[in-house]
Amino acid sequence: MQRGYAPFLYFVAVLGLEAAMQKECRIIEALQNKLTYQQRLQYMKHYFPINYTMNVQFEEVLRVANITRLRDQSVGELSLRYLWLSVNSQVLLKIWAVLPEKHPSWEYTRDLCYLFEQLTEEYENYNQGNMDANVWDVVEQLVSSDAGSSRKAVYPKALLDNCVKVMLMLYSESCK
Amino acid sequence: MQRGYAPFLYFVAVLGLEAAMQKECRIIEALQNKLTYQQRLQYMKHYFPINYTMNVQFEEVLRVANITRLRDQSVGELSLRYLWLSVNSQVLLKIWAVLPEKHPSWEYTRDLCYLFEQLTEEYENYNQGNMDANVWDVVEQLVSSDAGSSRKAVYPKALLDNCVKVMLMLYSESCK
Repeated sequence: MQRGYAPFLYFVAVLGLEAAMQKECRIIEALQNKLTYQQRLQYMKHYFPINYTMNVQFEEVLRVANITRLRDQSVGELSLRYLWLSVNSQVLLKIWAVLPEKHPSWEYTRDLCYLFEQLTEEYENYNQGNMDANVWDVVEQLVSSDAGSSRKAVYPKALLDNCVKVMLMLYSESCK
Repeated sequence: MQRGYAPFLYFVAVLGLEAAMQKECRIIEALQNKLTYQQRLQYMKHYFPINYTMNVQFEEVLRVANITRLRDQSVGELSLRYLWLSVNSQVLLKIWAVLPEKHPSWEYTRDLCYLFEQLTEEYENYNQGNMDANVWDVVEQLVSSDAGSSRKAVYPKALLDNCVKVMLMLYSESCK
């Protein structure tokens, strides 16, 4: 009798995962619409003083090259997405934190933070426990105290440029 | 015959100086209208990242207390005004220089720079050569290379707050 349920439960689980992926893709689409080159230029470059940099952790500068290297080490796609998500959630919160509430980039950055928050929620509901060990190490390094991690001065726009490039790399196939 | 012209020439000169003072006061009024607390707050605080500071020369932080001390040393009012003018012309150019052309404080700062340029022109036409030696020293220090002068990190709004306070101190009597 119990065995009879197995295909049905599997079917429900697959449906659930698919619905989750669709939701994830909708958030990614919203992010893409908010992270166009023009908006990054306006809100993260034109509205900041010339040569203004953010002091971020070394691990928060996540470039396409880092993802390529991790893929070569056979790190799974789910883990890479979680890494990208964790890094950029934190980066955006840091940018938001340096903006006064009446700064013209404040609302834009808050909206991005909310989208990342939604994505994290969605992600953690469905994919937790599927992380590669080396990705966990980086994520833990990020969420733990900053002490001990080397720092880097990076332009806010450069941080969002990295965010977009890696997003396209990780999602363009599964969120066509 | 030449002696007969003297009172007339003196009269013309006095008229000229009065007309110059009126023009100076009109520029001061325009500056006051552009330097209200609300505008300083908006353009120099809300539109900058939190804790953003400008690296200025020690002499560019010209406070009411500095003017009081110079007055106690019998430095004349014309010299004090020229000092205030020189310091703040340079401070505003420095703020303008860190702003991208599409930054929401760019136009505001440019307008202030223009007003200071007009005031300097007006001032130099009528008052040159009447400077106290110690004021000249400070002005020369400002316009010469920065090397050798100690530096200070100051908030842009704090620089304009000093500018306004000293302006009111120096002009409220003669530009009622």
